[in-house]
Amino acid sequence: ADGASRDAALDRQALLTKPAGALGRLEDIAVFMAGWQRCERPRVDAVQAVVFAGNHGVAAQGVSAYPPEVTVQMVANFKAGGAAINALTKACGADLSVVALDLDRPTGDITRAPAMSAEECLDALNQGAASLREGTQLLLVGEMGIGNTTPAAALCAQALGGEARDWIGRGTGLDDAGLARKAAAVEAALALHGPDCTTAFETLRRLGGREIAAMAGAILAARLRRVPVLLDGFIASAAIAPLARDNADLTQHCLAAHCSAEAGHTRLLAALKLEPLLNLGLRLGEGTGAALAVPIVRAALAAHGEMATFQEAAVAGGQ
Amino acid sequence: ADGASRDAALDRQALLTKPAGALGRLEDIAVFMAGWQRCERPRVDAVQAVVFAGNHGVAAQGVSAYPPEVTVQMVANFKAGGAAINALTKACGADLSVVALDLDRPTGDITRAPAMSAEECLDALNQGAASLREGTQLLLVGEMGIGNTTPAAALCAQALGGEARDWIGRGTGLDDAGLARKAAAVEAALALHGPDCTTAFETLRRLGGREIAAMAGAILAARLRRVPVLLDGFIASAAIAPLARDNADLTQHCLAAHCSAEAGHTRLLAALKLEPLLNLGLRLGEGTGAALAVPIVRAALAAHGEMATFQEAAVAGGQ
Repeated sequence: ADGASRDAALDRQALLTKPAGALGRLEDIAVFMAGWQRCERPRVDAVQAVVFAGNHGVAAQGVSAYPPEVTVQMVANFKAGGAAINALTKACGADLSVVALDLDRPTGDITRAPAMSAEECLDALNQGAASLREGTQLLLVGEMGIGNTTPAAALCAQALGGEARDWIGRGTGLDDAGLARKAAAVEAALALHGPDCTTAFETLRRLGGREIAAMAGAILAARLRRVPVLLDGFIASAAIAPLARDNADLTQHCLAAHCSAEAGHTRLLAALKLEPLLNLGLRLGEGTGAALAVPIVRAALAAHGEMATFQEAAVAGGQ
Repeated sequence: ADGASRDAALDRQALLTKPAGALGRLEDIAVFMAGWQRCERPRVDAVQAVVFAGNHGVAAQGVSAYPPEVTVQMVANFKAGGAAINALTKACGADLSVVALDLDRPTGDITRAPAMSAEECLDALNQGAASLREGTQLLLVGEMGIGNTTPAAALCAQALGGEARDWIGRGTGLDDAGLARKAAAVEAALALHGPDCTTAFETLRRLGGREIAAMAGAILAARLRRVPVLLDGFIASAAIAPLARDNADLTQHCLAAHCSAEAGHTRLLAALKLEPLLNLGLRLGEGTGAALAVPIVRAALAAHGEMATFQEAAVAGGQ
């Protein structure tokens, strides 16, 4: 981010008619956006949301409360406008698109094989990167993929350490037996692939999924083009865990929109040094948490850009 | 709140294309609003924000980092559109009005006398109640009043117990010496008035302030007219503490918009059994935290009202 614009924004914050620091994280967000937009008074008019969808071979291990055909059905629901993310992006004025990645060809079952070939993983990364439109000022990334909290947990355990049980949760509502199957699946995947996960790319390819790699690609493309990202939940955050472990700079353009109710998310955000903006008990994915944070960003920039200074308003007590 | 409408909203939530409970607090908000609006699919188009302003005799005790004349200067700033609450209500589509209560006549210094006479306190309550407009579907109450975290802390200590130091904080940015003066002022006020605070009204009259009583009046009027309220920060929450202690029903129409960085707010919300929607480190007042929560309420109702059911979207796994 641009230091001069950040400094200019910080200077402006000190002049506005409020006690220093009284707008808390709104002030941080304004300074953050100023840095990325290279502008003392940044704006977000063009907000883009992308939902990436993929299917997972590991779903055959009974790790989800829903059958795999729900992925394609939910993609149809997104396109018809009937899902939560449709209502929430409409409410916050974000433009929504859906990228379905080979839904009829699930990834390899990570308990037995790599999720993707190198070509497949690269293709997913590229599709993610290509989804970022010219002119986008704030990017929301979300996902849909029955079973995808299992590869997400495997990615976290491999990239950040800890046991399978530290990273798994009930996903869409798994019962105790399902949770035990999920732990076993993550453990099997780590045992099989761990020794070969010598790079972030190999970790993503072996343990991830198409929509997960696509999210990583979108986040990287946004970093290159200085577009701030609102990360959604556990899976969106897990998508960048292998890359972020090797290079913390890669997430400096990311705000964690929320902390999900999915068990591993709190630990994951702490490991990525991201402080969530919201904590509303969501565990849906789709980008819903990211969409909820858009008005917070807009409000931060409205206060920053529109408030009077102490001098302009003739209020005593400014610096 | 209306039980049948709540039940109808709960039934609808179970049919929407998401795992049960996956939208967390958004689901609770939709059911809450359904009960108060007596409607399965509630809406909030008309959002009203009122900032009440008052001056405080106790400011003479050196309990604020800002001089008392800032109250009237900030009221001018609200009217000119230059304050944080102007930017934030504009951003969330709330209609803002300001009620300044006798700014040239501060309340009595609560370390030495009651804040208000019975007539003054009743007048403030009535002005608050009168501020609620016909047709308002969601009310935000906020305040401005140099020194008003001191009476707010006194109200909390008197109504809810604990020591002065449990309820005081740095307000707009008090230093250590100021904090000690504030603790001493609250202790003196409690010692002087405590024995006479035998009713909620007496507590409010002796230890409160005009803008604080006006907020209580607005919140009560909203309760009578079934209008949900987004409570702002420490002072807005403290305004109803004496009444809520005697009758927990009085806050059932309130959502705590946020938890302020002011030290006593966490304890106060816990005592009032209110779970804040946001926690963004704000400590400004004016209704700013309440304004930030408006898009959360709107988003909750958008998801509730607009999402397709499992049957409508032909998605497997619904109930």
